[in-house]
Amino acid sequence: LKACLIAIGSEMLTPLRADTNTLIVTARLNDIGYHVRLKVIVGDDIDDLARQFDAPLSWADLIVATGGLGPTEDDLTREAIARVLRVPLDLDEQVLERIRARFARRGIPMPDNNRRQAMVPRGAALLDNPNGTAPGLWIETARTAIVLLPGPPREMAPMFDAVIRHRLAQRAGSVRVARRVVKLTGLSESETDAKAQPLYGRWRDRTPPIDATILATMGQIELHLAVQAPQSAEPARLLESAVADLQEIFGATIYSVDDRNLETVVGQMLRDRGITIALAESCTGGLLASRLTDVPGSSGYVDRAVVCYSNQAKIDLLGVPAALIGASGAVSEDVAMAMAKGIRGRAGTNVGVGITGIAGPGGGSAEKPVGMVCIAAVVDQDERVRTFQFLGGRELVKFQAAQSALNMLRLMLLGESAREWAERR
Amino acid sequence: LKACLIAIGSEMLTPLRADTNTLIVTARLNDIGYHVRLKVIVGDDIDDLARQFDAPLSWADLIVATGGLGPTEDDLTREAIARVLRVPLDLDEQVLERIRARFARRGIPMPDNNRRQAMVPRGAALLDNPNGTAPGLWIETARTAIVLLPGPPREMAPMFDAVIRHRLAQRAGSVRVARRVVKLTGLSESETDAKAQPLYGRWRDRTPPIDATILATMGQIELHLAVQAPQSAEPARLLESAVADLQEIFGATIYSVDDRNLETVVGQMLRDRGITIALAESCTGGLLASRLTDVPGSSGYVDRAVVCYSNQAKIDLLGVPAALIGASGAVSEDVAMAMAKGIRGRAGTNVGVGITGIAGPGGGSAEKPVGMVCIAAVVDQDERVRTFQFLGGRELVKFQAAQSALNMLRLMLLGESAREWAERR
Repeated sequence: LKACLIAIGSEMLTPLRADTNTLIVTARLNDIGYHVRLKVIVGDDIDDLARQFDAPLSWADLIVATGGLGPTEDDLTREAIARVLRVPLDLDEQVLERIRARFARRGIPMPDNNRRQAMVPRGAALLDNPNGTAPGLWIETARTAIVLLPGPPREMAPMFDAVIRHRLAQRAGSVRVARRVVKLTGLSESETDAKAQPLYGRWRDRTPPIDATILATMGQIELHLAVQAPQSAEPARLLESAVADLQEIFGATIYSVDDRNLETVVGQMLRDRGITIALAESCTGGLLASRLTDVPGSSGYVDRAVVCYSNQAKIDLLGVPAALIGASGAVSEDVAMAMAKGIRGRAGTNVGVGITGIAGPGGGSAEKPVGMVCIAAVVDQDERVRTFQFLGGRELVKFQAAQSALNMLRLMLLGESAREWAERR
Repeated sequence: LKACLIAIGSEMLTPLRADTNTLIVTARLNDIGYHVRLKVIVGDDIDDLARQFDAPLSWADLIVATGGLGPTEDDLTREAIARVLRVPLDLDEQVLERIRARFARRGIPMPDNNRRQAMVPRGAALLDNPNGTAPGLWIETARTAIVLLPGPPREMAPMFDAVIRHRLAQRAGSVRVARRVVKLTGLSESETDAKAQPLYGRWRDRTPPIDATILATMGQIELHLAVQAPQSAEPARLLESAVADLQEIFGATIYSVDDRNLETVVGQMLRDRGITIALAESCTGGLLASRLTDVPGSSGYVDRAVVCYSNQAKIDLLGVPAALIGASGAVSEDVAMAMAKGIRGRAGTNVGVGITGIAGPGGGSAEKPVGMVCIAAVVDQDERVRTFQFLGGRELVKFQAAQSALNMLRLMLLGESAREWAERR
């Protein structure tokens, strides 16, 4: 089945903002057997919009448009589709009431221009939006299903999953594309690719073939696996053996085979063991704490964190001896370990982490360059510390340092011995 | 002048790969006075391609297509444009010789399929490609200039700068597009839109008209301004007065007129005054500290932060009285203020911030629902506290809380009185 995606918003026609919604929608459509044949990015102009809705009606089985459902004069998706399909726009009192109630919950009267969001092209079905005021719309023509969704991904994606996915899957029949994302950290992209190379050929020769793509960002590598097969062949099961192939080659370097991120994996391990954690961060500036506390339920195992940019804070809050900072320097394995032990002892948690380094762009020297970060972790009796050298700008150094600290914890909690860990560089 | 950009390549219709060429081309076209009205991403299919080349010929002054000029059977841009313009493809012996010579320099015989790259639609001018085998093509119809460039950015961008830019600038005359991004926080999208509404009309009626787009995410609104004018009219200067119009209406609600984010603006204020800050975060889990320390040089004013998820940590690290937590609850204005004062007193900084709330998804009650956050700030003698009710998931509540704390600090540092601030809801 052929799909056309339309991303609406003049900001995406500037050099400043790229469309990302179509990537999210494409992944979901592939899952249920739709091929995206065309993506269109168009601004908030009624003539341009109408032209772009009109053209794919002659060939597309599905049009998914995102954006232009807001309350402002710029938001013209409703008007454009009504014009193209030659139907009037009606005010839907129920929708209006729901929008009013949403504002009331925040203690604010509904501004008058939000009435626009209750205008519905005649014949359209409404799609509930739990995360915003704009409902989505579903309209069918003789050949084409048209789905209109709000632009913000946090509104659009849940609506797709809760409401659209099932309806579209029914229209698509039985072919499915299954995907798995396997994530690992601690290897470079080319190391990973070289190790995985022999698998690629084997997977390609299978019936149906398994497609693999490697996607690397600093501090994280993703292997995307995909297979297309009739639902009866259980495409998701066909990928199980490919995941097992990867696990055999990469072992504990893989931290997730279900798209979970590293903070969620480590959080789950802490929760399963019923143990608690405390963090002492210098160069990561609270990023590790923030990532760990992005996970729902993290208040069950994160006890506390301190961000000690100043030496005095390291002395006051963690009991790092001033003499140690003087002798080894604030960025040193000794200080990282004193931070980890200090926060763990004071918080009375099972786990303590200490991170100190030079995030840049200033503060580097020949001996301690920008990107040098010392990370220490204590899990009960097990104590480890290592110095890393990261590349990239300030935010990237922070991310990689937090990622390495999480991975160190993961391997310790998995019970990897200090000797095995030392060989993993 | 109206431009349509076409990015060609089936890989950009998967969930894994986004088009970036159009951002590069848009920036360059804006500089010389072209407005991009439409971006199209299409796969390597002759019918799809021909359809996408045909449609904009009726309205576009310029079509720039990237990709599909390679030597493989997938590369169909030449065939598609020849079909649409109803001209034959001729083998150009000079181009063929140049491609052969390029291979010879690398000591390789030219593979036969590279002959495809020497096929030229009749009437097209050739554009030299110093970084690859595929020449670009320039074709003019009665209304539209069509530019075909290879897909790899390292080939495409230099060709644009060396060959295309000058030709297109001549067609456009001296017109240029200038842009400004104005950011504000503390108002909803529709409140902002309602207040800005009268300006839109005035700007539209100017010569040249100023174009405005509103872009909202929770906790932040951006107004994108653009104007097209002859270089001699200094389009960047024309936007100054529009920025001044916005400042008159929104006053201190605007935090940046130069695309800087809120943590950078607040950081700059702290640095300029030579004052220091310490943070006590509960529900934001270190996000505020992490955002403040994303700014280069923040070690100059961020002294420390503590993340106190547990009540015991609030008592130990901040000196919040256990009795106060018992009486008012951990999520209360009293506790937020005790946290702000506690961290400020212990760190000896000028500024202290306390944040406590319910990030969700669990932990809410009828009286204290998910998304309720109390934020206190102390700047020297000035003490303020407020309870906010945010909507959205856990990460969004964290972001909005950090955003509101930064904005509260900004307004206090700007010297907005407590009374003015109380009216700002």
